[in-house]
Amino acid sequence: MRNDDLLSPLRYQGGVLELLDQRILPIEEKWIGYRDYREIARAITDMVVRGAPAIGCAAAYGVAIGAKQGAALSEVIATLRATRPTAVNLFWALDRMQRMSPPSPENLEREAIAIHQEDIAACVAIGNFGAPLLPAGNVLTHCNAGALATGGYGTALGVIRSAQQAGKKFTVFVDETRPFLQGSRLTAWELQKSGIAVQLITDNMAAHFMQKGEIQSVVVGADRIAQNGDTANKIGTYGVALLAAAHQIPFFVAAPLSTIDLKTADGSQIPIEERSSREVTHIGDRALAPAGIGVRNPAFDVTPARLIAAIITEKGVARAPYAASLKLVKVE
Amino acid sequence: MRNDDLLSPLRYQGGVLELLDQRILPIEEKWIGYRDYREIARAITDMVVRGAPAIGCAAAYGVAIGAKQGAALSEVIATLRATRPTAVNLFWALDRMQRMSPPSPENLEREAIAIHQEDIAACVAIGNFGAPLLPAGNVLTHCNAGALATGGYGTALGVIRSAQQAGKKFTVFVDETRPFLQGSRLTAWELQKSGIAVQLITDNMAAHFMQKGEIQSVVVGADRIAQNGDTANKIGTYGVALLAAAHQIPFFVAAPLSTIDLKTADGSQIPIEERSSREVTHIGDRALAPAGIGVRNPAFDVTPARLIAAIITEKGVARAPYAASLKLVKVE
Repeated sequence: MRNDDLLSPLRYQGGVLELLDQRILPIEEKWIGYRDYREIARAITDMVVRGAPAIGCAAAYGVAIGAKQGAALSEVIATLRATRPTAVNLFWALDRMQRMSPPSPENLEREAIAIHQEDIAACVAIGNFGAPLLPAGNVLTHCNAGALATGGYGTALGVIRSAQQAGKKFTVFVDETRPFLQGSRLTAWELQKSGIAVQLITDNMAAHFMQKGEIQSVVVGADRIAQNGDTANKIGTYGVALLAAAHQIPFFVAAPLSTIDLKTADGSQIPIEERSSREVTHIGDRALAPAGIGVRNPAFDVTPARLIAAIITEKGVARAPYAASLKLVKVE
Repeated sequence: MRNDDLLSPLRYQGGVLELLDQRILPIEEKWIGYRDYREIARAITDMVVRGAPAIGCAAAYGVAIGAKQGAALSEVIATLRATRPTAVNLFWALDRMQRMSPPSPENLEREAIAIHQEDIAACVAIGNFGAPLLPAGNVLTHCNAGALATGGYGTALGVIRSAQQAGKKFTVFVDETRPFLQGSRLTAWELQKSGIAVQLITDNMAAHFMQKGEIQSVVVGADRIAQNGDTANKIGTYGVALLAAAHQIPFFVAAPLSTIDLKTADGSQIPIEERSSREVTHIGDRALAPAGIGVRNPAFDVTPARLIAAIITEKGVARAPYAASLKLVKVE
């Protein structure tokens, strides 16, 4: 595949990582250049870059840049490790960078580029494995598991891209995904750019359109998949999975192997990040709620394995019981 | 009860209806005065006033003001009838005004005031019938079925007010309720003013907090209840009802008899208003989505009667089978 044509949220060249600022899309398409690993860590925390696989790629480049700066590798990795707790790709990528031997700046840079390239290839493979699974009709997605959330191409949106390339006709119902609005700001933008039909809805409309028979499948990404198949993903995913089950609609998870964490036994072991209440009470500077109100803002939830029809990886499609099938695809 | 203490979204005196502008709460508490029935119709369409019972009250005052203006009663009623299709209280109030004989300005004014006062009394009765039904623990509500949605006191929030006055201790989880944000803007504000503990969440977080055991009941209002108990309410209500069922949490509907429409056989007969896509794509002037994207914006959904534990009215609590119990409370 030709990377020049590919939408990717990361560009790396000559010691500079450029990130497409996902906080201000789709109003502005602004790239920010980073030459300091501490600023890359901040960019991950602040969600300039987001999406589990993309966070992994950005952290890997962060290690390479830290090495170029002459910082101690342990310090660089510890700083990047402390950014966000839920997505396991972050830790997977940092562990892989840490294993690089010798840890020369050249080797680390090569490894980061490899992680990025392999992630793109994994997304294309996920797309090709997943596309035949989608039943005829429309598909719903939640959050952004697209090119913007990965090295490029996307996981859930990779499945959708591949299905479209295979000639399937459908509309993608896009949950806006409060509070950060990854659906309306990122997924809608990305699908529009790719010429895929979109119906943007607020998160609370999904049940209505399932009831009306307008949605035939759901496909989402993942931030961490436990050994038993329980899946942490953007807040709201668990609710969508329950609604899909209530309407007998298949609910698919699409994720690279780097998202599968065999060391986490089940969903109860996955740490759930709580973010600032301001994400809920404000849009930009505009207050949406009275000052001083109590707010909860968990960034993720856990969908139990029993609600998941299949987990689509770059090595194939895992089905229940996941304890067996995930081990097979992961260690094969 | 002393009305001077009561939060109400409507004030009427000497031929002027004042409405608390619910589009800009909680940023500003601004009252707008109306002396023309056509402007009142516009205020209903634009959601200066919203909430099924409050719309009924506003429309009744609109008829009284139209009569004072010397307009033809049939024209006044037709104009007000064409504002919003789903809430049946609008049609109920207009029918009641139309039956006034003789239809003198004085009689119509007296009837509008009576509709408003009776609605407040109905809310208090609903609160007192509903409060004992709430199990110990926290309660979730969706949209605003509070003082702001009624003549005053509220239906769902009336139940919550009465439960608190009865000494129950709980936190109210408030769905923000996209796209119009009735939860974060109105319910959070109203409960905060009343000293009731609030946790504001985005709509897609409800399932997570149910899974975590933090929500023990759900109570919502209604825009129209069909003869079989199927209930139209703010978009997202049906999803919350499904999530509550999946977690064995009781789901209550609180509404005055004026919301029960025995002429509508079931939910499939209730017209669902579709509103402007701009409500989804913008907050004020700020775009949240790419220009030109496809959008759906149904303002209501229908919760099937089988998901409703009880319907709380001012004449008592109706339970399944609703075809029998609603007729009893309504015509008794």
